[in-house]
Amino acid sequence: MHFRDSKRKVDYVLAYHYRKHLTRHPPGAGSPEPMRRFASLALVLNGGTGKGRAEVIELGPLDTLEEEKRLQREEYERNLVEAGLEIEKDPENKSQGLSFVRIHAPWQVLSREAELLKIKMPTKKMYEITEEGGILKTLNEIWCKLTEPLQPQVPQQENTNMKSLSYPFSREKIYLYNIKDKDTFFDNATRSRIVREILKRTPTKARNSMGIGTLIANNVYDAAYPLHDGEYEGQNDDMNERKLLYQEWARYGVFYKFQPIDLIRKYFGEKIGLYFAWLGLYTEFLIPSSVVGIIVFLYGCITIESDIPSKEMCDQRNAFTMCPLCDKFCDYWNLSSACATARASHLFDNPATVLFSIFMALWATMFLEQWKRLQMRLSYFWDLTGLEEEEEHPRPEYETKLLQKKLKNKNIPTENANEDEKEKLTWGDRMPGYAANFGLILFMIMLTFSAVFGVIVYRITTAAALSFSTNETTRSNVRVTVTATAVIINLVVILILDEIYGAVAKWLTEIEVPKTEKTFEERLILKAFLLKFVNSYAPIFYVAFFKGRFVGRPGHYVYVFGGYRMEECAPGGCLMELCIQLSIIMLGKQLIQNNLFEIGIPKLKKLFRKLKDERTEPKEMDTNQSKDPQQWDLDYILEPFTGLTPEYMEMIIQFGFVTLFVASFPLAPLFALLNNIIEVRLDAKKFVTELRRPDTVRAKDIGIWYNILSGIGKLSVIINAFVIAVTSDFIPRLMYQYAYSQNGTMHGFINHTLSYFNVSHLKAGTQPENSPFAQDVLFCRFKDYREPPWSQNQYEFSKQYWAILSARLAFVILFQNLVMFLSVLVDWMIPDIPKDISEQIKKEKSVLVDFFLKEEHEKLKLIESFIARDKQKHKSGTKGERIRAASFCQFNRSQKGSFASFSSQHTEV
Amino acid sequence: MHFRDSKRKVDYVLAYHYRKHLTRHPPGAGSPEPMRRFASLALVLNGGTGKGRAEVIELGPLDTLEEEKRLQREEYERNLVEAGLEIEKDPENKSQGLSFVRIHAPWQVLSREAELLKIKMPTKKMYEITEEGGILKTLNEIWCKLTEPLQPQVPQQENTNMKSLSYPFSREKIYLYNIKDKDTFFDNATRSRIVREILKRTPTKARNSMGIGTLIANNVYDAAYPLHDGEYEGQNDDMNERKLLYQEWARYGVFYKFQPIDLIRKYFGEKIGLYFAWLGLYTEFLIPSSVVGIIVFLYGCITIESDIPSKEMCDQRNAFTMCPLCDKFCDYWNLSSACATARASHLFDNPATVLFSIFMALWATMFLEQWKRLQMRLSYFWDLTGLEEEEEHPRPEYETKLLQKKLKNKNIPTENANEDEKEKLTWGDRMPGYAANFGLILFMIMLTFSAVFGVIVYRITTAAALSFSTNETTRSNVRVTVTATAVIINLVVILILDEIYGAVAKWLTEIEVPKTEKTFEERLILKAFLLKFVNSYAPIFYVAFFKGRFVGRPGHYVYVFGGYRMEECAPGGCLMELCIQLSIIMLGKQLIQNNLFEIGIPKLKKLFRKLKDERTEPKEMDTNQSKDPQQWDLDYILEPFTGLTPEYMEMIIQFGFVTLFVASFPLAPLFALLNNIIEVRLDAKKFVTELRRPDTVRAKDIGIWYNILSGIGKLSVIINAFVIAVTSDFIPRLMYQYAYSQNGTMHGFINHTLSYFNVSHLKAGTQPENSPFAQDVLFCRFKDYREPPWSQNQYEFSKQYWAILSARLAFVILFQNLVMFLSVLVDWMIPDIPKDISEQIKKEKSVLVDFFLKEEHEKLKLIESFIARDKQKHKSGTKGERIRAASFCQFNRSQKGSFASFSSQHTEV
Repeated sequence: MHFRDSKRKVDYVLAYHYRKHLTRHPPGAGSPEPMRRFASLALVLNGGTGKGRAEVIELGPLDTLEEEKRLQREEYERNLVEAGLEIEKDPENKSQGLSFVRIHAPWQVLSREAELLKIKMPTKKMYEITEEGGILKTLNEIWCKLTEPLQPQVPQQENTNMKSLSYPFSREKIYLYNIKDKDTFFDNATRSRIVREILKRTPTKARNSMGIGTLIANNVYDAAYPLHDGEYEGQNDDMNERKLLYQEWARYGVFYKFQPIDLIRKYFGEKIGLYFAWLGLYTEFLIPSSVVGIIVFLYGCITIESDIPSKEMCDQRNAFTMCPLCDKFCDYWNLSSACATARASHLFDNPATVLFSIFMALWATMFLEQWKRLQMRLSYFWDLTGLEEEEEHPRPEYETKLLQKKLKNKNIPTENANEDEKEKLTWGDRMPGYAANFGLILFMIMLTFSAVFGVIVYRITTAAALSFSTNETTRSNVRVTVTATAVIINLVVILILDEIYGAVAKWLTEIEVPKTEKTFEERLILKAFLLKFVNSYAPIFYVAFFKGRFVGRPGHYVYVFGGYRMEECAPGGCLMELCIQLSIIMLGKQLIQNNLFEIGIPKLKKLFRKLKDERTEPKEMDTNQSKDPQQWDLDYILEPFTGLTPEYMEMIIQFGFVTLFVASFPLAPLFALLNNIIEVRLDAKKFVTELRRPDTVRAKDIGIWYNILSGIGKLSVIINAFVIAVTSDFIPRLMYQYAYSQNGTMHGFINHTLSYFNVSHLKAGTQPENSPFAQDVLFCRFKDYREPPWSQNQYEFSKQYWAILSARLAFVILFQNLVMFLSVLVDWMIPDIPKDISEQIKKEKSVLVDFFLKEEHEKLKLIESFIARDKQKHKSGTKGERIRAASFCQFNRSQKGSFASFSSQHTEV
Repeated sequence: MHFRDSKRKVDYVLAYHYRKHLTRHPPGAGSPEPMRRFASLALVLNGGTGKGRAEVIELGPLDTLEEEKRLQREEYERNLVEAGLEIEKDPENKSQGLSFVRIHAPWQVLSREAELLKIKMPTKKMYEITEEGGILKTLNEIWCKLTEPLQPQVPQQENTNMKSLSYPFSREKIYLYNIKDKDTFFDNATRSRIVREILKRTPTKARNSMGIGTLIANNVYDAAYPLHDGEYEGQNDDMNERKLLYQEWARYGVFYKFQPIDLIRKYFGEKIGLYFAWLGLYTEFLIPSSVVGIIVFLYGCITIESDIPSKEMCDQRNAFTMCPLCDKFCDYWNLSSACATARASHLFDNPATVLFSIFMALWATMFLEQWKRLQMRLSYFWDLTGLEEEEEHPRPEYETKLLQKKLKNKNIPTENANEDEKEKLTWGDRMPGYAANFGLILFMIMLTFSAVFGVIVYRITTAAALSFSTNETTRSNVRVTVTATAVIINLVVILILDEIYGAVAKWLTEIEVPKTEKTFEERLILKAFLLKFVNSYAPIFYVAFFKGRFVGRPGHYVYVFGGYRMEECAPGGCLMELCIQLSIIMLGKQLIQNNLFEIGIPKLKKLFRKLKDERTEPKEMDTNQSKDPQQWDLDYILEPFTGLTPEYMEMIIQFGFVTLFVASFPLAPLFALLNNIIEVRLDAKKFVTELRRPDTVRAKDIGIWYNILSGIGKLSVIINAFVIAVTSDFIPRLMYQYAYSQNGTMHGFINHTLSYFNVSHLKAGTQPENSPFAQDVLFCRFKDYREPPWSQNQYEFSKQYWAILSARLAFVILFQNLVMFLSVLVDWMIPDIPKDISEQIKKEKSVLVDFFLKEEHEKLKLIESFIARDKQKHKSGTKGERIRAASFCQFNRSQKGSFASFSSQHTEV
């Protein structure tokens, strides 16, 4: 963890592979020069330990590419030293291998950069956080007592009621800060952040490129990472933060505990801290919605016996003769045979789901509001208030593209560097990228649709094929078989396409060549989200809103693919099928993705990597390093951190499952909750044990994810409105009960929903072939509101159809606007900034002003007293002291005056 | 404009009335003390000019209240002097009168406060603003050329492509700033802002209160205001900013010019600058919408001849015999007699209005987006980026209430000031205020509704009464007379209630005792907006959505108030009436409010004030002051500035008229545009000539108004959807053309919309009494979709009714979601921060870092060279110089080290 002197801390590590070719090249023209340069550098770097010099002699002629890389490394490291960083290198004493450059930032650099980056540091001044008085305080205390076993055992600041005033670090006001030890004043995360900032900023002229990003992209360096705090396992007593995190957070054994958010933030930085805070809040919010979901489900279970429509459907005496489900091979059937699905469908299709989907829409709003508040609270405690956006460096890929463009534009061959720097990629340069994006995204979406379509075709054809079957059991289980296999096919397609789309989205974003890392991330997220969203929900949308709506009617069915009838919903309604589809896709996706992709594949990758490393690296390595593996060696083996996007994406898609179709599947929040309890620890484990320490990134919010969440929340309102109005039987039942029923009860509802069809109107060749009771049937029934055969406009939509349609649409309008209004109300009623925090922030400001004024006053008084004493001394003093006083005053004045006058004053001396 | 020494600038003025009672009081116990105190103060204040001393002798015993006030003034002014401000007072040489305290802030105070307030000041560093290249630049130049006559002739910075880097003022970095003259480095607005900040902060212990606000509220001072820059009229050549503003902005003569926004901001501060920028943008945005509105109107005019439904209605041959409009006294009538209204209604009820309302919804979104961008642009150029919210002082009323509460809680009688300060008003204290608010607002809304209801009653009864009339002309003009008078009554009621509601909202907000000025303003705005919104739109909502919907049907009319039939819409449809209602209320409101309230009443007030002043102040005043009226005398006569709320409110209500019902009145934007062109100059004139100079307030945005605007924008989507779907005949026509028409044309539409009624089914006593052709009529027609008398379910809603209702509702859903989606898309596509500005901000940051690093480097080099030279000298120098160098280094080190060590070092000397 330290340089060889065991004093200077390693703040950052650069790793690279070096090769020394031992093949003899004739000593070329350019060869001696770099050799000499390298030799001198080695001298500088190794601090004259002699080892460097020994090496130079060993140096054979280098491969051109390797030489280029080495030169770039040399130049870069020289520039780093110039920027004030201190560097330690291992001797490259083998023909090829891995070497590390360890970087230490001395106090001087840290303080300068902290000032430039405006890093807020705690000052000496502490102030009390106002607590709520009265009942709230007691409640809070009780809550703390109750949840004590759930709190992670992390050492906390002893006095939680005090917060030290933070102020952007300034060397001129250094007396404000509580600096006990200059080595530990900035914590590890801050130190590595500062070093990274310098690494990013330092240029290498060789190829006119900027920063470590380009160098890694060009393979000059392999990796650049800050070090972990130590081992996370092991019996030795020296507790480090990583170990603490592992014990109190990153184990499944502590799944019931709260997360130590402050420690996570301290170790991994604000951005990752915010992710886990968000995930924690989301998981907590899933608890009430799970409970309500279970209640709604239980309500369905309990009322199933008293539900009149399903009773009527199951009643054998009613004997509704239904029209055949397929041409020729299917027979007339009795509605009571679909009794089971009708009963099952009541579980999810009851009035309680309407309330539940209103609840969930408000829940989503509440969740987002609470998140905004938590975010504010965290910003306050993490001193992020007033954080300005940091300047961002262009991505290496952008710079490369720019370079290419410059090289093309050879009509300006002069070395006008300034002019060139201003150049940027115009719309014309990006056009092909955008076009490719647009085209490919469209293509991908079409691909998804065709996958969905393919499954539909599979369902229709298989159903038809199976119904030809002579085997009675096959025929009776047609629907179950087809549905189950189709959903599984859907699931597999979704999983495969999901992975493909992730890669495609990344590739597409790279084609676009966004300028900064931030835009890259945002665009990648948008694209990936769009593709994965469509992929995950397309089959569900189909079932919810399209399936069974284009069937036609008996005698006038809609045929597709030359003779296949469009598929219908089960007699219990499409809601049941929607529910099955939803639950299988959601559960399957979570289980498989969690187990296979998040646990299995990383393990495989690690194994593969280990094998490869073992194969490529000869044994000499082992003898050298295994005896004393340093932290940088251990960390190098770990996987690099590649961003939070996949973690967020998984959760957002899940959030969609929880909110979008919640009207049809009230148990979704429960399954999400169960998944997330595991997910939190899974992610934690990954971060603590399997990844290199990520660069700490300051972030005030979760960025574009918030917009996506809020978009899903809004979309969920309209989708749920339609699910209730169109997919479920809620409105027809309501209409029947209050408008058509003779006695205000639901008796006769089933009869009301079924239209009559005169079997003699069936087209020739579509009549059931082997029907035992074809002779007895005059009219068969089908589910629709159409005029009976004996009316003037037979089989036209009946007045009831239009009335119920009006009611459905009116419900959509009412529901959408009511819920939107309630959401706006909730949004407006809950202030974005918690009241105590906003008061605290105001208080902090006034404390700061007071503190400054006081310091100012003291300083002035001190200077005055100093001058006064000097004057007194001056009266009775020596000549020398007189001069000193004068010089001090002069300096003091010049400090207050302009610096220009200061410089002129002193250069004239 | 200056102190008597003609050097120090007057930055702020406090005005107060003083009285010296000449009635003899026995010299009390407490009297000598304050007298002595005052004498000493007067000495200090008048700088020993002798005048003060002369006065003390004149002093008679003071009235208790006046004495109290005088003491408070004394103490307050003493505190101000202590805070570093310089004060000049007029001698109080009359028994009573107006006196001014003039305040000047010296450099020392200005620089200290500027640092505390983090006021951004321009540094020496200038940088170039990147301009767009290529076509955009040329276009921009052409645009500038074209609009040159429209640009106000205001002196601008010579080099508009350069911007000086701004940085929060810091005395330690004073060398960064371009200080030519310490007197003019801070402009007048900044100076007065700084003084006001001190005035607000300075406490008077006497009644434990803070700042000038409380003192003014307690009548200790009359007024506190910064001075205007001089006269706005007059021939003399000395141009000041006020005059410039008057000439280039605040005259009707320059109505066609752009506003000099930067100058407005410089003179009045950011908040008022933002208002005018907003108003300007809004007015500009009204131009395209007016043009499109006119086109839509013209489209209506042109297509009127080819409109089949109105032709059919006017065709005498069709001879639809309509059912009587009132019982007994009205006769059957021919539909062709309503030809005129049908034709007029086509002007506003045509397919183009649908497109227009989509256009207007997007227009509103675009406007808000553009405003966000303009706001960002202004923030950048006005150096408001990264502006933190300022600490706010509690309102005087809040403090008074708190004091009262403290006095009540006598169980803590100790002088525990610290404990007390933390106390705040709890929910319990505020409960009565909230309850009163809730109750009164509800009452006010009920009042509005009853006013609307009253007008309805007026309409129904008058119509009925007039229809009894035997006079033929009266009877034929019933509808016109009733509508016209009713609208005028509505307008008058709205105008009266508007004024009442403004006062009530203010009063209610004061009852609530909000803590800070900002919350006060926000709550006032919300309340006033709610009340005025309901007031302005209630009658319009009634006409749009309720009128004519509860009429019943012939033979089964709905009767109210014992025998009056509910009012119906004119045969041309309710849209026509909505249009009339809307246009009259909008125009009337604007004309009357502009002329009467904004021009007339202020003039009257001024006149009244002048008269009163003349009466109360004896002539001695005139002789003294009229010969040389100083700026503070002139400004004192002006009206105080009371906030922007009324100005914004007027515009927001107008924005509502422009967007909410635009589907029914496409000319609304045009009228708004005409009004606003005048409004801008009217407001400008008021600010420049009629108001005291307002305190400059920094503001980054227009605050809650933005939310209200965006709320109106969202509401407008759903309202327009309903107006088109429900109020207009758009959907029935569409349905007829594509579903019911035999040949796909509109022929027969009128017939289709009219149902049949068998006159024999009319209830006894409701048949027309004196009908000449009662015998010939078997069936009369009425506008509704009902089953004919010969059907089974006679007079029930027909299938067409339900089908058309479904279509209407589907249209609402489609329209709402489509427009909302488009709005979101527009919102998302237009970045909130203009690209050039965001690049500029990034650039500014990197320029800043470079600038600092460079300065740093130079400073270090300088110090190094200085030390080196000193060392050289030291070798050959005297002892004194050696000491000097050492002392300098010591100081230099201590400056870098902690202040504590500095102090210990030097106190030990």
